[in-house]
Amino acid sequence: MRPSGRAPDQMRAITIEPNFTRHAEGSVLVGFGDTKVLVTASLEERVPPFLRGKGEGWVTAEYGMLPRATHTRGSREAAKGKQSGRTQEIQRLIGRSLRSVVDMKLLGERQITLDCDVLQADGGTRTAAISGAWVALRLAVNTLLTSGKLTVDPIRQKVAAVSCGIYQGTPVLDLDYLEDSAADADGNFVLLENGNIAEAQATAEHATYDEEALLRLLRLARIGCTEIFAAQDRAVR
Amino acid sequence: MRPSGRAPDQMRAITIEPNFTRHAEGSVLVGFGDTKVLVTASLEERVPPFLRGKGEGWVTAEYGMLPRATHTRGSREAAKGKQSGRTQEIQRLIGRSLRSVVDMKLLGERQITLDCDVLQADGGTRTAAISGAWVALRLAVNTLLTSGKLTVDPIRQKVAAVSCGIYQGTPVLDLDYLEDSAADADGNFVLLENGNIAEAQATAEHATYDEEALLRLLRLARIGCTEIFAAQDRAVR
Amino acid sequence: MRPSGRAPDQMRAITIEPNFTRHAEGSVLVGFGDTKVLVTASLEERVPPFLRGKGEGWVTAEYGMLPRATHTRGSREAAKGKQSGRTQEIQRLIGRSLRSVVDMKLLGERQITLDCDVLQADGGTRTAAISGAWVALRLAVNTLLTSGKLTVDPIRQKVAAVSCGIYQGTPVLDLDYLEDSAADADGNFVLLENGNIAEAQATAEHATYDEEALLRLLRLARIGCTEIFAAQDRAVR
Amino acid sequence: MRPSGRAPDQMRAITIEPNFTRHAEGSVLVGFGDTKVLVTASLEERVPPFLRGKGEGWVTAEYGMLPRATHTRGSREAAKGKQSGRTQEIQRLIGRSLRSVVDMKLLGERQITLDCDVLQADGGTRTAAISGAWVALRLAVNTLLTSGKLTVDPIRQKVAAVSCGIYQGTPVLDLDYLEDSAADADGNFVLLENGNIAEAQATAEHATYDEEALLRLLRLARIGCTEIFAAQDRAVR
Amino acid sequence: MRPSGRAPDQMRAITIEPNFTRHAEGSVLVGFGDTKVLVTASLEERVPPFLRGKGEGWVTAEYGMLPRATHTRGSREAAKGKQSGRTQEIQRLIGRSLRSVVDMKLLGERQITLDCDVLQADGGTRTAAISGAWVALRLAVNTLLTSGKLTVDPIRQKVAAVSCGIYQGTPVLDLDYLEDSAADADGNFVLLENGNIAEAQATAEHATYDEEALLRLLRLARIGCTEIFAAQDRAVR
Amino acid sequence: MRPSGRAPDQMRAITIEPNFTRHAEGSVLVGFGDTKVLVTASLEERVPPFLRGKGEGWVTAEYGMLPRATHTRGSREAAKGKQSGRTQEIQRLIGRSLRSVVDMKLLGERQITLDCDVLQADGGTRTAAISGAWVALRLAVNTLLTSGKLTVDPIRQKVAAVSCGIYQGTPVLDLDYLEDSAADADGNFVLLENGNIAEAQATAEHATYDEEALLRLLRLARIGCTEIFAAQDRAVR
Repeated sequence: MRPSGRAPDQMRAITIEPNFTRHAEGSVLVGFGDTKVLVTASLEERVPPFLRGKGEGWVTAEYGMLPRATHTRGSREAAKGKQSGRTQEIQRLIGRSLRSVVDMKLLGERQITLDCDVLQADGGTRTAAISGAWVALRLAVNTLLTSGKLTVDPIRQKVAAVSCGIYQGTPVLDLDYLEDSAADADGNFVLLENGNIAEAQATAEHATYDEEALLRLLRLARIGCTEIFAAQDRAVR
Repeated sequence: MRPSGRAPDQMRAITIEPNFTRHAEGSVLVGFGDTKVLVTASLEERVPPFLRGKGEGWVTAEYGMLPRATHTRGSREAAKGKQSGRTQEIQRLIGRSLRSVVDMKLLGERQITLDCDVLQADGGTRTAAISGAWVALRLAVNTLLTSGKLTVDPIRQKVAAVSCGIYQGTPVLDLDYLEDSAADADGNFVLLENGNIAEAQATAEHATYDEEALLRLLRLARIGCTEIFAAQDRAVR
Repeated sequence: MRPSGRAPDQMRAITIEPNFTRHAEGSVLVGFGDTKVLVTASLEERVPPFLRGKGEGWVTAEYGMLPRATHTRGSREAAKGKQSGRTQEIQRLIGRSLRSVVDMKLLGERQITLDCDVLQADGGTRTAAISGAWVALRLAVNTLLTSGKLTVDPIRQKVAAVSCGIYQGTPVLDLDYLEDSAADADGNFVLLENGNIAEAQATAEHATYDEEALLRLLRLARIGCTEIFAAQDRAVR
Repeated sequence: MRPSGRAPDQMRAITIEPNFTRHAEGSVLVGFGDTKVLVTASLEERVPPFLRGKGEGWVTAEYGMLPRATHTRGSREAAKGKQSGRTQEIQRLIGRSLRSVVDMKLLGERQITLDCDVLQADGGTRTAAISGAWVALRLAVNTLLTSGKLTVDPIRQKVAAVSCGIYQGTPVLDLDYLEDSAADADGNFVLLENGNIAEAQATAEHATYDEEALLRLLRLARIGCTEIFAAQDRAVR
Repeated sequence: MRPSGRAPDQMRAITIEPNFTRHAEGSVLVGFGDTKVLVTASLEERVPPFLRGKGEGWVTAEYGMLPRATHTRGSREAAKGKQSGRTQEIQRLIGRSLRSVVDMKLLGERQITLDCDVLQADGGTRTAAISGAWVALRLAVNTLLTSGKLTVDPIRQKVAAVSCGIYQGTPVLDLDYLEDSAADADGNFVLLENGNIAEAQATAEHATYDEEALLRLLRLARIGCTEIFAAQDRAVR
Repeated sequence: MRPSGRAPDQMRAITIEPNFTRHAEGSVLVGFGDTKVLVTASLEERVPPFLRGKGEGWVTAEYGMLPRATHTRGSREAAKGKQSGRTQEIQRLIGRSLRSVVDMKLLGERQITLDCDVLQADGGTRTAAISGAWVALRLAVNTLLTSGKLTVDPIRQKVAAVSCGIYQGTPVLDLDYLEDSAADADGNFVLLENGNIAEAQATAEHATYDEEALLRLLRLARIGCTEIFAAQDRAVR
């Protein structure tokens, strides 16, 4: 039995509140249950040095967790003077995931930065961030289309992400903190609406796993992402 | 005329939403108009090294601004690897302000950290932070009183803060971003409910000012803080 | 056709030279073709703070690349003053991979640090590092068994890793630099000798992939790891 | 009674030794009693990036304290690798204070940096620094006027600063270390020769204060600054 | 001919002003011509971790240069966030030099830190620092002898240092900035009063040199140090 | 008697393996006994900012030690976030030494960076690095001559370095770790093939030394460098 009483293939409630803040070209407050992430999409009419003059755009991400997003207060990365390895790993994953659905030639020489800040954490912050970031990105690109700066949409399709893991011997979908901290193995899957995979990661935490388990986690992820795609749809409509 | 159409002595709408997040012993989302600050109060049963064994507690604060809280995206301090001078100045001010109303002997050897993170900025983030932090602190101390860890309340009274400034020759209360960026002088006043002053700061930005102006700013601050004290009252009830 | 002329399921030459340096409790120079990584295992009779007094050991890893291991000189991380996100991601992966085959209770309160320094890079540095690190760890633990400090072997089985990817539409094993920099997708698989998976990661670089492709990459990885296990065997004999 | 035996409105001896070092365009050793600060004004024919091409100059300040300027040795900020919040707060105040009396258009596209290094500390280092910095700035600007690079003086008037505080219930002028460390409240006032205020700051340390006290501190500051203006006059003559 | 008109074996005027600041256990302002270094000796009744419990003391040094000690302003190391290689090299040299004349067993478990801060630079700052530091150390140790904390003097003899170099083909003593920046080779010699050498360093800058030149530099250094020993004597008397 | 049984003027075995890695324009693995240093020479067609447009080249060096090159594991400088003073001192010495034999005008506007990474340490790492770096530099410059980018050789002659010291009262050549850690004094000498000195450094560690000792160390260094020059000759042939 899961601590939350959910069925193995049951997601937590997904909430995506668009336009949560005013200044960003796109912004959402995304919730997977008690996990709440504020994502803003910031549009800049310039690209990083390695892309200058190539006629291509860039999508990148930064990730942070407020010190008391968690059960016990963590130290503030700005005060410590560096981002942890975990933070860097997550923000690299978010950036790669969103880039997998954007045509950079069509975007043109501009950059969109997705800032994902966790206001409250209960497991799955990176997958909530990716899922919400797609909506923020969608909203920001819409401003380009509306204003006529772009005439062809550079976003090819939706992307969403969800965590899965093996908890007390059972593959389960969308781990919360209690599950995440005790799982034998857990993974994150970044899926496209057409069924393709942008990223699959599964890590043994307390026990290694076999090929069959990997496939079952992937199948659970498909169930979860179907729900997320629907929530993304509602949010941008 | 003020850009917002407010009267010179008119505050923006004050909103204080208690228990905005779950994990912290106290938390609020405080708003002064479009300025929105999430404040959490984290309680730890230990004190900094310089206080160990003295039987006294400590109250401290950290401040941050999300990269896209502002009109244009600023760089993330965690990524730059250091907090700006502005950030440090603000968090020192918040900590001092809250300590001015706490009896550290009564608090006992425990520390309360007030994390003030600006989700959206429109001027006055530090004063909104102080005003909200008092509520978060109040909620956190209430848990100590309720649980019986404390029997005497270490909070002596309320503290609130508001900015004032001279905008186009007129002293005005609670500057928003448009006013703040064009003010001749601006200041921050931290006041106690009994009328006393915890901190008064007034800085010439584009023009120096005289003693009469300083007093008018202080009088405006009294008007604003009266409103804030009422909002604090409503939030903790 | 692969640039190297290899068949899709063909590994590069695997070389594992044990005892490459003198001071470390275990050391190897591991080569996957032109990729050369020096791995040392350092044994210390203490554990990190979070494990003190729990009767358990710890295995951790650090990773570095010499500035001119690559085709063009990269900057030295020690001179820049920080490790890149890529470096941190890799050393976290190496540490997790090795921990998956060690019984920490049996190891006792001691730490083994695996330093993986790339002397020459031609793709697959992290997987060569993991594969070599197992040998260095084996040698270091052997000194504990020989000296009588341990009587029961805490290493449960072998672990090895290899990269796979989709290059010009074809799934291939053990990517070299030319393949790695042009692959549509690539992944790293960390496998145990009993067939279980410690870590599976597959990332879309230029094109997303489907479930069938993921499985074919995993099957290639099994072929590669079988060869690596044999090379590990020869090295520790 | 004050520890030094001074009357409540009595300054310590003010000494301003111009041209204390040779290389800087302006330099002074300023003393407020045992507080000794070396201030140099360095002139550069360039401005910070945000001002380039605007036809305006810039005046900025940096502040440091030698490790053994104080009663017990403090750590060296260069060795720790960062400036404290206190240091940054002070150097921002010094810069703002001096900018309040300079016409940046008249200065033209050049920058003057005021380095304020405390050789010996006995309270009031920031106010001594501001008061001395005006003389160093005056000397540096004089070289521009003498050389004909400037024909109109960009310095509008004098600026000086002094600390005041409430010590054992009595408002006193120009706190030394013994008073400063025990004061109920203390403040720093930056005044112009025409009586206007560039900056007023008053902070409750051990007790909050009322409006009357704020005004008495300001009046004491006027007495002190009158003396400082006279000392500045003597120094530049 | 030397720019200053000095003879090849002629030192600049040596000035050593003891007790230049009040708080340190020992302090001097040392001058070699226009080079002025403030040295303080700070005594602490504790030793670094590697010496705890061994019954031995420690002498160490830190070095800094005020930003405008030089002809053109250099950046402040505290603001840059790190000490340059040159700074670290110099402070290591100063520490070693002073340790060469102190009996650490006799000093007992206490540390003396020599802070050497260059107020004005005209070549030879490190050698002036070493020569002045001996006096500051002497004064600090005297306080231990006077107070009865030590009964046997741990300072064995005097140590002094001077630079020498080959300027326009001629070996010269005590290089000033003009000579230093154009010298073919230059060196620093740290000598004891009994004639022994604590440190000899000679570096080719624009031309390598032969053994005979090395010996002539050493002989010039002996001449210079004889004068410095006399100045040290006068300062501590 | 020396711990290794060597005669006082006996070097350890010198090995210089050219082309140890593939990508660098020049590379060697240099060994002085058990000290093993990998040196790569990286050629870039650009110079540092201070040399741009002057028609001159630059030769510089960086130095690092792998964490377990030594008897006990040291911390990784990249992980600590800064290079030690020792590291910086050594890399400055290596750069200066190599520059002493290169005609920068003939080299033209290009930079050669010598990365010296210690794989295994047993004393004398900096002198082995300098001696090996000359070979790496020679190989890199040869590629310029072969390709016709240079027609005149900018390398004037060979440079080599060796350590000497006073061990148990006897001057000895090429100290290993056991000698180095117990020597009364030790030094590093950088010599040219024509007998000239590029750098002489001798430091009292446990006892100061006299002029005669300095000369004997220099004479030992000449013996050692003669052997190193021969080994360099063999390596580049």
